[in-house]
Amino acid sequence: MNTFPKSVRIVEVGARDGLQNEKTVVPAATKIELIDRLTACGLQTIEATSFVSPKWVPQLADAAEVYTGIHKRDGVAYPVLVPNEKGYDRAREVGVTEIAVFSAASEAFNRKNINASIDESIERFRPVLERAKADGVKVRGYVSTVLGCPYQGEVPVSDVVRVAERLHALGCYEISLGDTIGVGTPEKARAMLRAVAEAVPMSALAVHFHDTYGQALANLHACLEEGVSVVDSAVSGTGGCPYAKGATGNVATEDVAYMLAGMGIATGIDLDALVETGLWLSAQLGRATSSRVAKARSSH
Amino acid sequence: MNTFPKSVRIVEVGARDGLQNEKTVVPAATKIELIDRLTACGLQTIEATSFVSPKWVPQLADAAEVYTGIHKRDGVAYPVLVPNEKGYDRAREVGVTEIAVFSAASEAFNRKNINASIDESIERFRPVLERAKADGVKVRGYVSTVLGCPYQGEVPVSDVVRVAERLHALGCYEISLGDTIGVGTPEKARAMLRAVAEAVPMSALAVHFHDTYGQALANLHACLEEGVSVVDSAVSGTGGCPYAKGATGNVATEDVAYMLAGMGIATGIDLDALVETGLWLSAQLGRATSSRVAKARSSH
Repeated sequence: MNTFPKSVRIVEVGARDGLQNEKTVVPAATKIELIDRLTACGLQTIEATSFVSPKWVPQLADAAEVYTGIHKRDGVAYPVLVPNEKGYDRAREVGVTEIAVFSAASEAFNRKNINASIDESIERFRPVLERAKADGVKVRGYVSTVLGCPYQGEVPVSDVVRVAERLHALGCYEISLGDTIGVGTPEKARAMLRAVAEAVPMSALAVHFHDTYGQALANLHACLEEGVSVVDSAVSGTGGCPYAKGATGNVATEDVAYMLAGMGIATGIDLDALVETGLWLSAQLGRATSSRVAKARSSH
Repeated sequence: MNTFPKSVRIVEVGARDGLQNEKTVVPAATKIELIDRLTACGLQTIEATSFVSPKWVPQLADAAEVYTGIHKRDGVAYPVLVPNEKGYDRAREVGVTEIAVFSAASEAFNRKNINASIDESIERFRPVLERAKADGVKVRGYVSTVLGCPYQGEVPVSDVVRVAERLHALGCYEISLGDTIGVGTPEKARAMLRAVAEAVPMSALAVHFHDTYGQALANLHACLEEGVSVVDSAVSGTGGCPYAKGATGNVATEDVAYMLAGMGIATGIDLDALVETGLWLSAQLGRATSSRVAKARSSH
C-alpha cells in the first residue's frame, strides 16, 4: 500500500535556520549548549551555524566560536551554511567538513533577494562546490520556495526540478526541498516530491516544511508515503516566517519525532530528552515553545 | 493510488464541544451569533449545543435559548448533544430534529466517568434511540477515546469497532470516531478507521481529531486516503483538553478547510469568512486563536 521508510534521519536546523530569525542575539554559549544537548538527544545531523556575512545576519557573527565550541560526537554531522567563497574560507579555517548551499526555486525570490536569476545564483556556488569537492567536504543543497513564493505566488514544479537537478549534478549529496512560507498542502507536496524524484534519486532528497499554515506534518505524511527518508525540522519549532510576522516557523522536531515514533519509523531520538531540550531553549529565548508535543507534555 | 473523496462535509463542533470547556460562561447571544456566522460561512452541519444537565455543564444551561435563537438555514443541520431521556425531552420541546449520543471506547473511561461498562453505557441510550426513531429524529453517534485513554492508555481497536457497530445498529446514521486526547498518529488512525469500516460502511463514518500533539491534520490525511468524507472540527480550534491543561483542543476548522482546499476537495466553505469568524470568536473569548491559518493570515 505505501512505502514508508523503516527509518528516518532528522536534520535538526534549529541552531541555524531557527535562531537566525531571532531579533535578540543569543549568546554563543547558549548555542553551543543547544547543539551539545541535541547531540545527546540522538540527532545524527545538526546544522550548527552559518558563515554568512555578519553584516547580513548579526545573529550568526559567532559562527567560528560556535563551531569550535561544540562537542562533536563521532558519527554525527554538523553542517554549516556557506553563502560564497569567503564563507567557505571562514568555515574551512575552523575545520568544517560539511557545508550547505542554497537557492530558491522561484525566479522572483532570487531576483528580489540576490538580484540574480536562478541559473546565475547556482553558478555563483560553482567555485564553492568545486573547492568542496577538491577538499573532500560534503555539500548539502537547499532549494527554497518549492511550494510557493511570497513574491510570485505559485512556483512551477519544473523550476523546482531544474534547481534540484542542477545542485545535485554540481555535487550536492542531498537536496533539501523547502516550503519556505509554509503554504503547501499534502498532495501538492507529494506531486512536487515525485517530480523531483524523477530527476534526483529519492535517497538523495530531504523535505523541509514550515508549519505556518499548520500543514507540515500532513505534508510530511504524504512525502513519507513516497519514500522520502530525510526530514528537516527545528527543536521547539524555532524560526519565524519573515513573510508572515508572528506566524510559526519550522515544524517542531518534537512533533515530527512523535509522529514517526507512532508510525513505527526509527529516528534514534530520545523524545523525552528532546522535549526537555526544546523547553530549555524556549526558556532561554523567553517565549513559549511552538511544539504541540512539548506543550501537551509540560501541561499535565 | 489513493481514494480521496471528491467532497468532504465538515461537522463544526465549536459551539458545543469547543465552548463547553470554557471556564467563563459565554452569553447566549454570542453563541447564537457564532452559529449564525458559521451558517453564513457555508458549513452544512453545525452542532449547536448540548441538552446535558446544567448542573454538569453550566456553560450549556442556555441550550434551549441558543437553539431557538439561531437562524436556521434550509439544508443545514443543527444537531444537539443529548445525554439521556430528560435531555431528549428538553431538546424536543424546542423542536430539535437531529441529536447526537456518545460513548467512550475505553472501558476505564466509561467506568471513571459514568460508572458503567461500555455495554451498559450504550444500553442507557437505547430508550433515547427508540424514541428518536419513532419521532423521525436523526441521531449521530460519537465514540470517544478511539486512539488512547487518559486512564487505561491503549484502547483495543476491537473495542472501538464494537462500540461503533452497536451505535450504528441502534440507529445512528453516522458514527464519529474521536481521538479525545489527541495522542494518535496517522497510521494508527488509519488502522483504526479501516477496522471500523469493516463493520460500519465508510459512508457512515466521521473522524474527530484533537490537535493536542499536533497530529490532527496528518491523521486526517491518512484517513482521507481511506475514503472517509466527514470530518469534525472546531472554528478557531476551541476546546481545551481537560486531561492536558493548556494544550490545544479540537483541530481548527480553518486549518482543515485550508488543507482540503489545497487538495482540491470541495467543502462549500468560504475560508475568508471562516477565518474572520474564528478571529471574531477568539476576540469574544479574549484569547489567541489556535488556528495556524488564522494566525498566518492575520499577521501579514
